[in-house]
This record gives sequence, C-alpha cells and structure tokens, in this order.
Amino acid sequence: MQRDRNEILAESIKRLLRRGATKSLQKIIRKTRAADLSLVFRELSRDNRLKMFNLMGDPEEQGLLFSELEEPIFLDLIGQLKLDEIVEIFENMAADDVAELLGYLDEKLADTILEKMKNEDSLEVEHLMSYGEDTAGSIMVPDFIALKEDMGARDVIAALQNDYLDVEMPFYVYVVDEYGKLVGVSSLRQLVVVHPEKPLKDFMIRDIVSVNTYTDCEKVAELVARYDFLAVPVVDDDNRLVGIVTVDDVIDIISEEATGDILKMAGVGEDYVETQTIFRGTRIRLPWLFTSCLGGLVASLIISGFHESLSKFAYLAVYIPVITGMGGNIGIQSSTVVVRGIATGKINAKDLWAVVAKEISIGLILGVIYGLLIGAVAKIRYMEEPLSLKFAFAVSLAVVVSMSVAALMGSLVPMLFQKVNIDPAVATGPFVTTSVDVVSVFSYLTIATLFLGF
Amino acid sequence: MQRDRNEILAESIKRLLRRGATKSLQKIIRKTRAADLSLVFRELSRDNRLKMFNLMGDPEEQGLLFSELEEPIFLDLIGQLKLDEIVEIFENMAADDVAELLGYLDEKLADTILEKMKNEDSLEVEHLMSYGEDTAGSIMVPDFIALKEDMGARDVIAALQNDYLDVEMPFYVYVVDEYGKLVGVSSLRQLVVVHPEKPLKDFMIRDIVSVNTYTDCEKVAELVARYDFLAVPVVDDDNRLVGIVTVDDVIDIISEEATGDILKMAGVGEDYVETQTIFRGTRIRLPWLFTSCLGGLVASLIISGFHESLSKFAYLAVYIPVITGMGGNIGIQSSTVVVRGIATGKINAKDLWAVVAKEISIGLILGVIYGLLIGAVAKIRYMEEPLSLKFAFAVSLAVVVSMSVAALMGSLVPMLFQKVNIDPAVATGPFVTTSVDVVSVFSYLTIATLFLGF
Repeated sequence: MQRDRNEILAESIKRLLRRGATKSLQKIIRKTRAADLSLVFRELSRDNRLKMFNLMGDPEEQGLLFSELEEPIFLDLIGQLKLDEIVEIFENMAADDVAELLGYLDEKLADTILEKMKNEDSLEVEHLMSYGEDTAGSIMVPDFIALKEDMGARDVIAALQNDYLDVEMPFYVYVVDEYGKLVGVSSLRQLVVVHPEKPLKDFMIRDIVSVNTYTDCEKVAELVARYDFLAVPVVDDDNRLVGIVTVDDVIDIISEEATGDILKMAGVGEDYVETQTIFRGTRIRLPWLFTSCLGGLVASLIISGFHESLSKFAYLAVYIPVITGMGGNIGIQSSTVVVRGIATGKINAKDLWAVVAKEISIGLILGVIYGLLIGAVAKIRYMEEPLSLKFAFAVSLAVVVSMSVAALMGSLVPMLFQKVNIDPAVATGPFVTTSVDVVSVFSYLTIATLFLGF
Repeated sequence: MQRDRNEILAESIKRLLRRGATKSLQKIIRKTRAADLSLVFRELSRDNRLKMFNLMGDPEEQGLLFSELEEPIFLDLIGQLKLDEIVEIFENMAADDVAELLGYLDEKLADTILEKMKNEDSLEVEHLMSYGEDTAGSIMVPDFIALKEDMGARDVIAALQNDYLDVEMPFYVYVVDEYGKLVGVSSLRQLVVVHPEKPLKDFMIRDIVSVNTYTDCEKVAELVARYDFLAVPVVDDDNRLVGIVTVDDVIDIISEEATGDILKMAGVGEDYVETQTIFRGTRIRLPWLFTSCLGGLVASLIISGFHESLSKFAYLAVYIPVITGMGGNIGIQSSTVVVRGIATGKINAKDLWAVVAKEISIGLILGVIYGLLIGAVAKIRYMEEPLSLKFAFAVSLAVVVSMSVAALMGSLVPMLFQKVNIDPAVATGPFVTTSVDVVSVFSYLTIATLFLGF
C-alpha cells in the first residue's frame, strides 16, 4: 500500500519535472514527508534531484531531507551544491544529524564546512564528533528535560508548557541535583496523577537505567529493547546528564546491526550498501573470497596427495562434493545459530561447552542419518564394483565425521571469538565453510584409503 | 555493564534460594524489573523458578514476567502451575500479551483457559486472536486516546489528566468523527502551544499514516521506522480506529524479522530458538539439509558421468572443491546482498534486471581475477605433466563460469521469489549453494573434457 503510494508520487513528480510545472512541484514538496521524498529521490536522475532540491528552498526542509537520503545519493547531491548553501543547510539541522553526515564527507571538506558554520552550531557538532564512532555519545541529542528535585508537579507541568516547547519528544522528565548529576526520572503520566504540590524527589524513580557517553550503541539498543524505553539518558564520567538516545535511533541501530551481521557472515563486509557501483562492490567483496580461494587450494593440495588412491579407485572423486556440501551446510547452520544467539543475548559466552556439546550432538545425529542415506546410495550405485560395501561404509563414515566436525567448528569458532572480543559474525562466514571443506576432503580421503586398503 | 549487573543479581538470588531467605528474596523481586527477572530465570533450575514465581505473589507482577519469559521457560513454568492460578494471572495481563502467550500453548489448554477467564477479558483476547498471525490486528493494543474534533485544546488536556490515566503511553491524540472513523491526529506538544479554546479540527494533522488490521507486521514496522513514529493507528475496513501498534512492539518485530531472515538463509528455519532440546533442534534442521544432500547426490551423478575423463586424467578431481567453493561463496554473497536489500527496502523487485546485471558483472570480474590466480597455481603445480597449460586454462575458465553463474543464480532466485511473493530468504540459503555446486561441477568437467580432448 505504502510502496504504491510512493511509486505514484514518484511518477507524478517525474511528469511534473518534464513539464517544468514549478508551482505544482513546490506544492507537492510541501505536503510530502522528508522520509517519502528521499524514496522519490532514488528514482530521479542526477539533474532532477538537484532541481527538486532547489525547489525546496527552505534550508530547514532541505536539512530534513539530507538526513533521510541514502549515503551515495547524499554525496552525489552535495557535490552539486555550493559551499555556502551546504553551510546554511547544516546550520539549520540537528547537531547529531550534521555530525553523522560530516562523517560521510572527506575530512578536508568536513573541516571547511565546520569552519564556515556559526560558532555555536559548529561547537556542538564538533563536541558530538569527538565521541568515538558507534558510541552513545555520538548519537545522543541534547533534547531532554532536566529539572531540580525540589520542583513541585504543577511547576514541572508549567515548565514543560513554557520552557521546553522545543523538546521534540517530552516523554521523560529527568531530575538532576545542583551539580547536574542524574538522580531520578519521572514520566508525564506520573506528573498528572500526583498532588500538584508534591516535589519530584518524592515520587521520582531513583533506580535509573542510564548509559555512558562511551557505551557501545548496540548495548544502548539492547537496553531500550529490553525495558521498552522511549529514550535512555546518557551521562558522563561524573554522572552528569549530557544527552538522551531516543527510540527512533535505536530502531536504526537494531536494523543496521542485523544487516551488518548478515553481510559479515556472508563474507561481504558490513559496510556493503546495495546502491554501490560495480567497481566498489567488486573491491569490497574481493578480499573476502580470498579465504575461500586459499582454503580451496589447500583442499586441492590434499586431494593431490591422495593421487595414488584416486587413480586406483577413480570413483572416489565422485562423492567429494556431497561430503563437502553436507559439512558446509551444517557448519553454516551451527555458526548462524550461535552468532545470532550471541547477538540477541540468547547465548552467553560463558556457556561455551554446553553450546558446543549441543551442536556436536546435533551434528552427530544428523551425520548418522545422512551418512546412512548417502552411503546406501553409494552402495546401490556401485553394486557391481568390488569393494563397494567398504566404499559405501567409508562414504558414510566420512559424512558423519565431516558433519560432526563442521558442527563443532561452526559453534566453537564464533564462541571463542566472542570470548576474546572479536566480532563473531566476521569470524564465521567464509572462514568456517572453507575450513570445513579442507577437513571434509582430508577425512574422506583418509578414511577411504584406510578402508579400501591402499 | 548491564550484563554484569544481572549476573550479580542471579548469583545473589541463587544464594538466597539456597538459604531459603524468603523475606530478602521478596524484597529483591519487588525492586527488580520483569525484564531483568526473566534473565535471572534463565539461570535457575526448574524448582527454583517455581519457588521464585510463587514468591512473587501478585498476579499482575507474575503476568508481566510471563510476557518477558522465553517460550521454553514459559511453557515449562506454566506446566507446573494450577489452572486457576494461570487464569488469574492472565486476567491481570494486557489482552495482546495473553493472545500471544495462548498461541504458544496447545489448543485444548488455551481453550480451557479462555473458558475459565472472565467474559470481558476473554472476549477481548479472542477478538485479537481472530486476526491472522503476524498482522497489525494481532499485535495492536486498545490503549489509545480518541477524541472528537470539536473539542478544544484545554478540554483535551483535561481529558488526558482525568479519563485517560490508564493509557500507558499518551503520545498521540487521535481524532475521530461521530462514527468512530479516524480523521486526524495531534500530539501533546501541539496541544500545549495552541490557544486553549482552539478545537482539534483546526490544528490536527489530517494526512494520517494508518494501517489496516490485516496489514503485515513487517509493513507496520517499516512505516514506524521510516517516519520515526512512536505508534501507528490501526483501522478496520470502514476506517474506524480499533487500536494502535506501539514502537516497543515494532522493535521486537524488526529484531525477530532480522533473526528470522538470517536463520532462514542459513537453512535452519525461522522458528529455531537456541534454548531448544537436541532432539527438537535436530528435527528442525533435518529437512533443510535434504536439499543439500539431494544436490550433492546429483553432483556425484554428474561426476560419475565423467568417469572416463577422470580415469584418464586423475588430477581433474583435485580442483573440484576449489571451484565449487568459489562458486558457493560468491553465490552466498550475491543472495545475501539481494535478500537483505529487499528486506530493508534498498532493492525494489521491479529493478530485477538492473540488480541481476550488476551481480553478474561483479561475478564475472571476480571470476576472472580468481580464475587467473587458481589457473596459475594449477599450471605451476602440474608443470611437468603433458597438457598442463590446457588443464590450467580449463580450470581458469571453469572458475569464471562457476562464479558468474553463481552470482546470477544468487541474485535472480531471490528476486524471482520476491516477484511471486515467496519469502526470498527461504528460497536462498541451501537452495542456491546446492544448485551452484551442481552447476560448477558440471561446467568444470565439461570444459575440461572439451579442452583436454577426450
């Protein structure tokens, strides 16, 4: 439904652009949310994007659009604008959005823009940029309500109506002491139910969940998700309230985290964005395939080491793909379950052996089931050959070994990486499948050689 | 930080349970949020969970914990409770939570519980359960504020303070006409800035984004994420406001959707939950591996079809794993980029050919690079053999073909599934890697046979 609506919108905008119907376009722009406009921009040509952008006129609206655009489109658009225009738009944006966008630009341009911005605006941005990437400090907004604990409920409500009108989302009233330290929190709901004279300190919640400026974004998202908060307060090392992270940013973090995990596990690198050029796409994906290439070459070395067995018994080669395939697939299953379990908090690094033991058990059971099946097929297929029973048995056993070892590696590798604080998602993907290939080939050929008595 | 806090909490609760320190336990329970308590429950034995649960006493608190517990723990706990206890707890819970939990129970027990519940409570639950799974109707809450458009701002604020105190999160004031149809929306912020006598119809927003009771949850989540809403109104076919979906539920949807996609792509099935038993884990994963098994057996059939080439040229087998491996890995890359692109809205099903063409190009370039590399290794390795140059060339070409075809299939398959409305994540995982294996083996052996002139 919504997608259709935006497609219709894109079509009419394109038609109006062709006709040069400036007035109608401006009317549409005024009525359309920045989030929708950014989707339309995806469909427009370079020139038309610039035309539309200039038609918007109002730097505040342009700023809202800036923060909704996808990175490549934003970069392309900004390349077509004059420096003064950019500076004016940035001055009309929220500091956290400016900080994020400046991170996309090259450093020199970012510095030039900051220098040209009004001091009061650029200072706030530079302050945010001084926090490490992916920390609560870098995404917090100063848009919060902080009042003293002696204030009565009625005065608090009056303050909200008078002094805090520019606060976007006034869900929580934070309570600070004389040094600005966070001591409590109250909600709008509580404010209206208590006696109007009652001071905050008598009904505020003192058991506050807060994060530090350097807390990792994913940790912040986890807390907001767990407690169903609409915002979480950010404090500095002295417990002074310096900002809040709101739920809308948390949604973005969760979605980006999941996408990043998926891409890392597929060996694409977490920063892979679909709208990239073929060249950049190739460059990002190239190194990830190198593991796979190296592992494949090692597997080929192993096979050539069994040259004698292979020439005596040529149909040994026939079952290589099914054995590596079964191992590879169960390895992906195990590593995915573990990586995602760690990410969602369902698996704890300290349960290492319990998790690994369970995966091995599953690998073993599935290995026996599929080993018997594949072995039976092999026996029937090569019924007339001498040694066919021994061969079938070797295939079965190789499937069992390959699948159990794959389940072991698929679970152990990410658990160990988590223990030493390396992102388990990166560790997994190509690394696990490739090592499983090597192990599978080696164990298959060794088992077969032993059984067939070469 | 937070994890440590909960670990410490779990440790002290375990200690107190051993000592039977009822009073201290009750004090801790009162002070702890249900979300944290549910994490502690994970660490406790069956008996201790029941003990803790009984110590809670208050059915409202027990209900909050119910909705936080993981499914297996919830099921286990409820199996230890008496029917009357369960009914009383459910009567004290929000209808949407009850509806969700009843979905976990077997139908007979769920029906018995519904029959025993007070009519007013069970009717609401049954109403919610009548909406299809994963629709807005099934997760909406009736916890909204709906007022008439003639009401003035001051009266609205008074109504909020008097009539709507039980509304959990009063962010938006929805405006309905005399038939209950949704006609506008206003925010708390707007209410306090306009003149107190101004009626809602003069300042409400009329361009409302709403969803239908049967709108898919993921669609709802997409809208909330795009527009940074705190809640989205749900209407029936006559545009009557019947509920809202709040941002905290949207966070869960986004997280579950991502996990589901990851698990489906890994061939584990979207409902795989880590805390399952080995038996259930095996049963869920078994059928997904069947594709892989079948594909592997097809590959083995193909190889045995080239029996003659293989016995003449035994080292042909040596490069099978590296070629299937390279194809498999780039296939996973392409399918992941496309599946995740579709899920996050960055890829549109109508751009099918553009997306596939781009993936093929990347596959071709990477294929040439790695083809040359692997071919060179093959040439050096078999320098002394006759035909080694031809062989190396065949290996190179096979890598190029395998990687290009893998990129084609990895992108085309999910795009086509999306077009015919089948979940692309399910289609991808084992299906793509397995078919890539088959294609790789076939093209490699065909090319080699042609080049080496058998």
